[in-house]
Amino acid sequence: MTAPVDLTPKATANHTPLVDTRLLPLDDAGARATHRVYEHLIGMWAPGVIEAAQDLGVFATLTAGPATAAGLAETLGTDLRATRVLLDGLHAYDIVQRERGGDGQAVYTLPASLHGVFAPDGLFSLAGKITHDRNVAWHAWRHLADNVRSGARSAHGGQQVNQISEEDYTALARGINFWAPPVVSVLADALRERGWGDETDALLLDVGCGTGIYSHLMLEAFPRLTARGLDAPRITAIASEQAARLGVHDRFEPLTADFWNDDWGNGTDLALFVNIFHLQTPESAHELLLKTAKGLTEGGLIAIVDHIVDEEAGGANVQNRFFRLFAASMLATGGGDAYTVQDYDQWLADAGLRRVALLDTPMHRVLLAGR
Amino acid sequence: MTAPVDLTPKATANHTPLVDTRLLPLDDAGARATHRVYEHLIGMWAPGVIEAAQDLGVFATLTAGPATAAGLAETLGTDLRATRVLLDGLHAYDIVQRERGGDGQAVYTLPASLHGVFAPDGLFSLAGKITHDRNVAWHAWRHLADNVRSGARSAHGGQQVNQISEEDYTALARGINFWAPPVVSVLADALRERGWGDETDALLLDVGCGTGIYSHLMLEAFPRLTARGLDAPRITAIASEQAARLGVHDRFEPLTADFWNDDWGNGTDLALFVNIFHLQTPESAHELLLKTAKGLTEGGLIAIVDHIVDEEAGGANVQNRFFRLFAASMLATGGGDAYTVQDYDQWLADAGLRRVALLDTPMHRVLLAGR
Repeated sequence: MTAPVDLTPKATANHTPLVDTRLLPLDDAGARATHRVYEHLIGMWAPGVIEAAQDLGVFATLTAGPATAAGLAETLGTDLRATRVLLDGLHAYDIVQRERGGDGQAVYTLPASLHGVFAPDGLFSLAGKITHDRNVAWHAWRHLADNVRSGARSAHGGQQVNQISEEDYTALARGINFWAPPVVSVLADALRERGWGDETDALLLDVGCGTGIYSHLMLEAFPRLTARGLDAPRITAIASEQAARLGVHDRFEPLTADFWNDDWGNGTDLALFVNIFHLQTPESAHELLLKTAKGLTEGGLIAIVDHIVDEEAGGANVQNRFFRLFAASMLATGGGDAYTVQDYDQWLADAGLRRVALLDTPMHRVLLAGR
Repeated sequence: MTAPVDLTPKATANHTPLVDTRLLPLDDAGARATHRVYEHLIGMWAPGVIEAAQDLGVFATLTAGPATAAGLAETLGTDLRATRVLLDGLHAYDIVQRERGGDGQAVYTLPASLHGVFAPDGLFSLAGKITHDRNVAWHAWRHLADNVRSGARSAHGGQQVNQISEEDYTALARGINFWAPPVVSVLADALRERGWGDETDALLLDVGCGTGIYSHLMLEAFPRLTARGLDAPRITAIASEQAARLGVHDRFEPLTADFWNDDWGNGTDLALFVNIFHLQTPESAHELLLKTAKGLTEGGLIAIVDHIVDEEAGGANVQNRFFRLFAASMLATGGGDAYTVQDYDQWLADAGLRRVALLDTPMHRVLLAGR
């Protein structure tokens, strides 16, 4: 378990506010509430500005070096005034820095820490997330009410799948690789506490491995680990490619078995499920855990990395907030839910398993379970 | 001038964060930057959740009293699970409160301070802003890059107008009435400092009055003031209706003169321009000030309420950030700009006027000028 954290919102705000409510009378609750909701409503301005800049090549150009609005407009073939407005908008979100040059013109700089964030081929880039937003998310969120009416369940029940295209899935999977390092860091520490080390021979089964990033980082953390990445052939091809890029391909085995009908093999020391359980129904979650338990070694563990709501942490808990909204995001794009620790505990008990740890990361919780 | 304010972002954050970057290593600038940008990209989730709830009638129902997800789903004819996900999303944004009822079911409450925020006929409601978002803003922000390419100027130059429909203009004008009270409060204080009081007979000319809310609140503040609201006939009809609703119609005169070609009359003690100058070009701004100066009494004042960037306040200043982004918003919907105090000072000097005050409000600055 992690140490208790200070939940004061102000202490963790990543973004500066856009509405200075300090200038409102303290006793006017209505005015304060309206201004606060207004600031929520203009939340779409941020992806609007950032994605437009990505589309136009602003970040690619600024990665090469600082530029003025005039210089950028010429390079990109955009309108000068509009380019200046866009750059000033990025500056308002602290995405680019803005300083007066010698001739009085503003010079815009993309900080080095943000170069990788927008790079199309960056390992932890958000480029794929932006592609997904532009193809799917804007429309889905604009029309969320429709899915609240209908429920947006798949017609045949059972396993729910996000109703996004294959191409978009690939973009999105790459666009959320950045979620992996904090998760693997926490998971690796927990395993080390349980005796895992540089000399541990172990087999990791990464169920629904996607780009394989969690396996790949685990292989980097544990030199004698072998990882089996289970997914559709199209996806394991991506994972194998990335394993080669990271130099861990000799210990990464793609496994293209059928998720539900084929056997996954035995001897699993660690079964890893990243963002798999939020797509399940209670029934399919149960089936998944039974199947996994069968293939585990004596002392084997299951690591469930997901948007696991911990009611005991309180509604104001930052992770819980994100998980609740991630459930709304899944509702917008067609499936999935954020289950609670209590749900997981019940499913584990039904499969003869028990939770041994619950660990916080910025975008997930890691639930570790054993027999 | 207002007192200096503490610009520490954290001290003014209206929203709790969704990404707990405290759980990231302090020295990993890339990871921190990526998580911060990700939180910006999911900014669209907030209007997505709030607007869907408004569309479905969630707020109207909760204004009548607290409800469970099951109760709401039945009332609204929506899917139960999806309704629960939506309500938990609203709770994550601190829009609704969530407590366990006696039977263990979560009960959702809309705080009283938020009842007026979503009411279709509320004087300071955001309902019109939400209508505008749904009709215009989602599409406009999704396609901002197009306008950065083209510049989105009106073809004939001169005065720029937002290219939104008349129906949408009306919704939006009503949806931003909430901007008025903090502005009028600051303006009235400044006028009182200059000798205005309960016995002052004065004429206010409200150029481009919209719903007339600024005039109406000024009439409430100064009992012997008369206000002339200049706008298109369709708009002054809305303003007259609202004047009657607020009981100030005997001192509110609609004026449907042609903005550019007709005379506005003389004897103006205070000429008020709210969100008018951001739609001007430097040339039309100059023309507007010359025309206004002609009709002012000896000692008459001009109050310009707008998104006035004050470079001296620094780029991190909350108002400046909002104004820069409001300029991007105008670019998205087709026109307007956020000019600087320096721009205004130059235009004023060219018209034989000078700035006498610059006052902060949450969403605007108020520039007061005289001869």
